[in-house]
Amino acid sequence: MLRALELATHGPATGVNPRVGCVILNAHGDVLAEGWHRGAGSRHAEVDALSKLAPGGARGSTVVVTLEPCNHVGRTGPCALALIEAGVARVVYSVTDPGEHSCGGAERLRAAGIGVQGGLLAENGEAFLGDWLVAARLGRPFVTLKWASSLDGRAAAADGSSRWITGPDARLDVHRRRAACDTILVGTGTVLADDPALTARGADGGLLPRQPVPVVVGRREVPASAALLHHPQQPLFFDGLDLPGLLTNLHQRGLRSVFIEGGPTVASAFVAAGLVDEYLIYLAPTLIGGPRLAITDLGVSTIGEQRRLSIYSLDRLGDDIRLVARPRTN
Amino acid sequence: MLRALELATHGPATGVNPRVGCVILNAHGDVLAEGWHRGAGSRHAEVDALSKLAPGGARGSTVVVTLEPCNHVGRTGPCALALIEAGVARVVYSVTDPGEHSCGGAERLRAAGIGVQGGLLAENGEAFLGDWLVAARLGRPFVTLKWASSLDGRAAAADGSSRWITGPDARLDVHRRRAACDTILVGTGTVLADDPALTARGADGGLLPRQPVPVVVGRREVPASAALLHHPQQPLFFDGLDLPGLLTNLHQRGLRSVFIEGGPTVASAFVAAGLVDEYLIYLAPTLIGGPRLAITDLGVSTIGEQRRLSIYSLDRLGDDIRLVARPRTN
Ligand SMILES: NC(=O)c1ccc[n+]([C@@H]2O[C@H](COP(=O)([O-])OP(=O)(O)OC[C@H]3O[C@@H](n4cnc5c(N)ncnc54)[C@H](OP(=O)(O)O)[C@@H]3O)[C@@H](O)[C@H]2O)c1
Ligand SMILES: NC(=O)c1ccc[n+]([C@@H]2O[C@H](COP(=O)([O-])OP(=O)(O)OC[C@H]3O[C@@H](n4cnc5c(N)ncnc54)[C@H](OP(=O)(O)O)[C@@H]3O)[C@@H](O)[C@H]2O)c1
Repeated sequence: MLRALELATHGPATGVNPRVGCVILNAHGDVLAEGWHRGAGSRHAEVDALSKLAPGGARGSTVVVTLEPCNHVGRTGPCALALIEAGVARVVYSVTDPGEHSCGGAERLRAAGIGVQGGLLAENGEAFLGDWLVAARLGRPFVTLKWASSLDGRAAAADGSSRWITGPDARLDVHRRRAACDTILVGTGTVLADDPALTARGADGGLLPRQPVPVVVGRREVPASAALLHHPQQPLFFDGLDLPGLLTNLHQRGLRSVFIEGGPTVASAFVAAGLVDEYLIYLAPTLIGGPRLAITDLGVSTIGEQRRLSIYSLDRLGDDIRLVARPRTN
Repeated sequence: MLRALELATHGPATGVNPRVGCVILNAHGDVLAEGWHRGAGSRHAEVDALSKLAPGGARGSTVVVTLEPCNHVGRTGPCALALIEAGVARVVYSVTDPGEHSCGGAERLRAAGIGVQGGLLAENGEAFLGDWLVAARLGRPFVTLKWASSLDGRAAAADGSSRWITGPDARLDVHRRRAACDTILVGTGTVLADDPALTARGADGGLLPRQPVPVVVGRREVPASAALLHHPQQPLFFDGLDLPGLLTNLHQRGLRSVFIEGGPTVASAFVAAGLVDEYLIYLAPTLIGGPRLAITDLGVSTIGEQRRLSIYSLDRLGDDIRLVARPRTN
């Protein structure tokens, strides 16, 4: 399995499909063939490995694969069927297929009389699949909502000025976390007000190696002079009328995580729609008062409707407080 | 000095004046007389001790007193003058007199040729005087502003409901801290909306031994049925038009600390006036949105005018976060 995980790393780190590796062994444990998945549209790892053997060459073999063999007909045939047809004796996999349409491979193999064992080195397998697995389980990208506010919940002073509420440590932390996401999302209000570059930058102001795809939501047009049009990644535009649809669209593009940077209207819309998986809140030790709220309205009319969260971490970051929370489940 | 501090404890723990103790020693270190202050209008500790000696009995003696001898003519004559007239040789004190009108006693004694030493066991002396000293240095009571809000700064849902935003641990902590203050202050808005009892209660709902004096600010009348009219302490009423004047008035009554419980309008007025010494903020892991803000307006029009704070402590209290902060000084 460790060898299969190693093979998986040859695949592309981003995209719609997961990275998968496969090793085929004979009854003595000798390697007959190896394979891996090269990304959407190309052969799955199991089929790739089988293709290296002469017809009948996999009969009675043991197939070790990092992800449960799929059971659907996508751009390629179901791997479970290919394994059955090849006459393999045993299939060992690490991570269960989280896909709504692709799962059920193990069952199908068992029904065909093949010995199946799942969960081998599952922790390694899950850690390796990371974001892809999280997004696959959600059926959409993982959504992080970030905001920075004063202790009284303000994102800016009355005139809109907000430089600086949080300190350099918090700002650097934001850029590092931006770089770890596939997309960074803002509303047209923020684009028109602030003309943000939406890049992830280091302490020296230079671009970090990985840059999230900028996503702008809203019906208003983004001016041709907008800084984000010079982003190293091609920006995506949505009207924002269908937020779940927007997330599905991003998922279908192989984008596995969204970092929402605001503004308040768009942030509140995602919270109200129940589409936020993680809150990243920077609280600066300051009071501002007035009309510029970090969160506007959530449609909470009475206290029973409040959105309870669970705090995952609470840290001091320079003078500021960083709080990571997730929706409470019960 | 330890004996003088012990004598001081015979005085009343509350009131306008500090508790002070005094010991008079002869040249061999034998105790000639002891005294203490019994509260506003009665003899100061030094004069009390002197009164126990025959005229001339203190000549050449050493006077050990917990607080710098006063220099003003209040309801009693200045102690510094009394000591000079008694012909004492030396004065040793612990804490410097913080009073605007009463300070300068040490200087006056020195000018009269008396040996003076201040700061003996100053830490013990300051700790003993506690709230009195803090209020005396401020020239008004020490003001703590407490609020409880969601992470987005809301104190209630749109319909005004707020039971419960914070959990039982935080609520119990509030009651404990109420009981440690001389007064608890709210606006008429809160009285009319919530009809609070303004008592400090324990986990079982029973009254704690010490109860703060309820203070209501606002021009609207408090209904005769208001719960706070049954408070164990006689409530005080102010129109709230002159907040510094209100604090001076409380100080003159010997009330050394104020615990502001809101609501948002009164809390914001105290912040805007720069009259808050300590912020006690309970943040519940929840989002509410909407119009019911914990802090309304502070007159901050641009970011340079924000009210920066320094965080003194940050703790988890049950599910909630407790934050203690003070205005930043620089
Ligand atoms: N401190 C911070 O963390 C922070 C971060 C970002 C921004 N800001 C500040 O926020 C201010 C901008 O506020 P804003 O609220 O106008 O910005 P915004 O949330 O970025 O944009 C609001 C706009 O988003 C569009 N939109 C798209 N999908 C939507 C949906 N489902 N529901 C509602 N609206 C949707 C609408 O524009 P259309 O009319 O075009 O459809 C709406 O007017 C700026 O002053 C900026 O400085 C602060
Ligand atoms: N979550 C919490 O921690 C918390 C705590 C307390 C209250 N609350 C909620 O707050 C709501 C009441 O809000 P509120 O803002 O109306 O209550 P408030 O601040 O208690 O009362 C406001 C009133 O105080 C008077 N006032 C006195 N001095 C003032 C000054 N210097 N500046 C301005 N006003 C002054 C004015 O009344 P006059 O017109 O009579 O002069 C004003 O209308 C209630 O729904 C209550 O449940 C929440």
